[in-house]
Amino acid sequence: MARQASLSGFTELLPAERVVELHVLDSLRRTFELHGFSSLETRAVETVGSLLQKGEIDKEVYAVSRLQGDDDERGGRTDPQQLALHFDLTVPFARFVVENAGYLQFPFRRYQIQKCWRGERPQEGRAREFTQADIDVVGDGELPFVYDVEMALIAAEALDALPIGDFVIRVNNRKLAEGFYRGLGLTDPMAVLRSVDKLEKIGADGVVAELRAEAGATEEQARAALRLAGIRTPDTGFVEQVRGLGVEHPLLEQGLNELAEVIGLASRRAPGKVVADLSIARGLDYYTGTVYETVLVGHESLGSICSGGRYDALAVKGDRRFPGVGLSVGVTRLLARVLAQKLAVATRPVPTAVLVSLADEDGWAAADDVATALRARGIPTEVAATAAKFGKQIKYADRRGIPFVWFTSIDDGGQARHEVKDIRSGDQVPADPRTWTPPAEDRYPRVVPGD
Amino acid sequence: MARQASLSGFTELLPAERVVELHVLDSLRRTFELHGFSSLETRAVETVGSLLQKGEIDKEVYAVSRLQGDDDERGGRTDPQQLALHFDLTVPFARFVVENAGYLQFPFRRYQIQKCWRGERPQEGRAREFTQADIDVVGDGELPFVYDVEMALIAAEALDALPIGDFVIRVNNRKLAEGFYRGLGLTDPMAVLRSVDKLEKIGADGVVAELRAEAGATEEQARAALRLAGIRTPDTGFVEQVRGLGVEHPLLEQGLNELAEVIGLASRRAPGKVVADLSIARGLDYYTGTVYETVLVGHESLGSICSGGRYDALAVKGDRRFPGVGLSVGVTRLLARVLAQKLAVATRPVPTAVLVSLADEDGWAAADDVATALRARGIPTEVAATAAKFGKQIKYADRRGIPFVWFTSIDDGGQARHEVKDIRSGDQVPADPRTWTPPAEDRYPRVVPGD
Repeated sequence: MARQASLSGFTELLPAERVVELHVLDSLRRTFELHGFSSLETRAVETVGSLLQKGEIDKEVYAVSRLQGDDDERGGRTDPQQLALHFDLTVPFARFVVENAGYLQFPFRRYQIQKCWRGERPQEGRAREFTQADIDVVGDGELPFVYDVEMALIAAEALDALPIGDFVIRVNNRKLAEGFYRGLGLTDPMAVLRSVDKLEKIGADGVVAELRAEAGATEEQARAALRLAGIRTPDTGFVEQVRGLGVEHPLLEQGLNELAEVIGLASRRAPGKVVADLSIARGLDYYTGTVYETVLVGHESLGSICSGGRYDALAVKGDRRFPGVGLSVGVTRLLARVLAQKLAVATRPVPTAVLVSLADEDGWAAADDVATALRARGIPTEVAATAAKFGKQIKYADRRGIPFVWFTSIDDGGQARHEVKDIRSGDQVPADPRTWTPPAEDRYPRVVPGD
Repeated sequence: MARQASLSGFTELLPAERVVELHVLDSLRRTFELHGFSSLETRAVETVGSLLQKGEIDKEVYAVSRLQGDDDERGGRTDPQQLALHFDLTVPFARFVVENAGYLQFPFRRYQIQKCWRGERPQEGRAREFTQADIDVVGDGELPFVYDVEMALIAAEALDALPIGDFVIRVNNRKLAEGFYRGLGLTDPMAVLRSVDKLEKIGADGVVAELRAEAGATEEQARAALRLAGIRTPDTGFVEQVRGLGVEHPLLEQGLNELAEVIGLASRRAPGKVVADLSIARGLDYYTGTVYETVLVGHESLGSICSGGRYDALAVKGDRRFPGVGLSVGVTRLLARVLAQKLAVATRPVPTAVLVSLADEDGWAAADDVATALRARGIPTEVAATAAKFGKQIKYADRRGIPFVWFTSIDDGGQARHEVKDIRSGDQVPADPRTWTPPAEDRYPRVVPGD
């Protein structure tokens, strides 16, 4: 990661870094599959028309067209059939659900781990090519609320299995915020959300001024909206605090009940990991109920590494509505921090545990027999390509991080004698290719805390 | 696969099909890692300049440019900085090696499993978006020949582990063919290769006519070139057959020795899977030594599903040359046939082995405790979202292919009593969430021969 990408925003990992990434991806996949999510991949391209369905594209989208096509084949940027690379996995998933509804069983649970592309100006945590790991549950017509609870629990479990240290999943609810603002008498809840979202940037007085100017709020209404945003509890204590603000609205009640159900059940299973945080505004404008954001403790500036929420209608097909709730882990964003600060490192860059050395060039087939016996028992093994001096072959293993070197000699009776050397300790012991096994911690590269 | 892709050439798999694809990808990854190959991913985009380095782009390339960029930012199609999606994994790998040579240990062994894109007209075995699984070994300055042998062995082992039936890896050698033609007195070996490659299409007489017209061959030279292309042996018998044609040339000798080494060692380990086939011409024009192609027996019309060869210079950096030898498995091409003809199918479309049922809505947390205990032992488990009638919950499991449903009741003493039902047989037995384990064949979806 010290290297400069040759194309800004398009990071490429070296083998040891890729071991860490694969570990993260494998771990996420395992958690998702243990929870019954099916793997899905959608194509990399969507039509601009499909990308536009969720409203204006405010992301920088990469258009795709045949290099050798005619000029008019390259597509105008307003042509809805123009192809473009997807910028997230939600829009493609919604399109997939509509196209394949007849082939799917609802509620449909899928995970999707793929690259996405955005032409934004690169900075830490924002690449032009990046990997997202999404899970969603989508229903046909309706989707029970308890899935909103399950999402928070799965996120906590999935992140807990990663080598990333402490994190906090912050949950809010659009109905709660909107109901509160309406109960206050404010009629443009989106405008209120947008202003409250600027709290860190422009401060409390700045938000109050903006709420008065943009959302038609009185000083008192503005201060009440800010008090709501100040509430944050690791349990359902937020309910009393909100009630204490003396605002009433049916939507507020519904939001309080929903958020209490998520926090109540989640704080039981993952105490301290899932909290109610009523300052969360981002995302509330496109989700319709629960909203999740996640920060790495000590790395809050990185932004959210796992976000999502509930949609009343993730997808629509005629008069058929598909509500959904889901989460997206920003794997590339997370990994950039993990690798840059060596929060986790690989024990070696290669899968190889054993190098079978060559005593002479004619010995390759016999050496490959040894390697085949080891591989048959799941031990990653390479055969040396040349019968260089043993010192040189050991050096080759050392340079690559291979912990063991295997030696075979033929004794006076014509019998093969095998020995294996741990090149870190120098210990060399007799070994049988049919039974010898490296210590568990040396079999595969592992991911461990960095220095 | 019966469905029509909504965008021609961009296939998307349904969950049960994706289980088969994941099985294939996991299996390839396992074989590659057991042989010491490191995982690598390169960015999806290259500059057109980089794609052009290997000569003319004869593939249909997809250009990539910011949709909302200025017109001149969209790039002319001759601008070498114009971005385009990669059409294979060899060109990006070569570029990566040059850029990162200082960070890599040579010989560098990597596998790379990624999507590629070509704007060609879609047909079976040729998609616009497709997955390739590549392995290459690349050296710095030199690369021992024994890696050419190893490649054939790894290919045989990797394909043997896939649910695809019989295959044959056909091996030829550019030096052998070129040396033979030169020994015959033909001075344009590329022209000869191009004509011989048309054997199936235009027949022997057609090739002879073309060799006379295009490659300046006599009738006798042309017939000799055809006789060479007719040689195919499962062992090193080809050497005698070629010698019997009475042609001599140093390059021919070198090619014979190289091919004999590959076939000799490979036919020992994988008899019948790796054969010498001197009719292979495709690929000989860009590889410099060994060439591999692979056909599925009974599906020869599909074309090669695993191809590759040796490059004297996979990459060049100043006066530093990186020779390489590698293979590419056409996963999408292979899978299209496997899925269309149901050569392999998934035992179920979901990972879930157990659905924990809900007796009443308040029981969700207790049910989730059961699920957590099962998942902790690696059993994929879902919790029902609503306390519908048990018959309905069983039906839900059945529709999704989940084999087991878990029931918890509270007995008169306030103790939880657990039972699990195999919904295929109807058998229901008492079970403990801390110890019960499904039969091994039911734990995860498996891939089995289709009907």
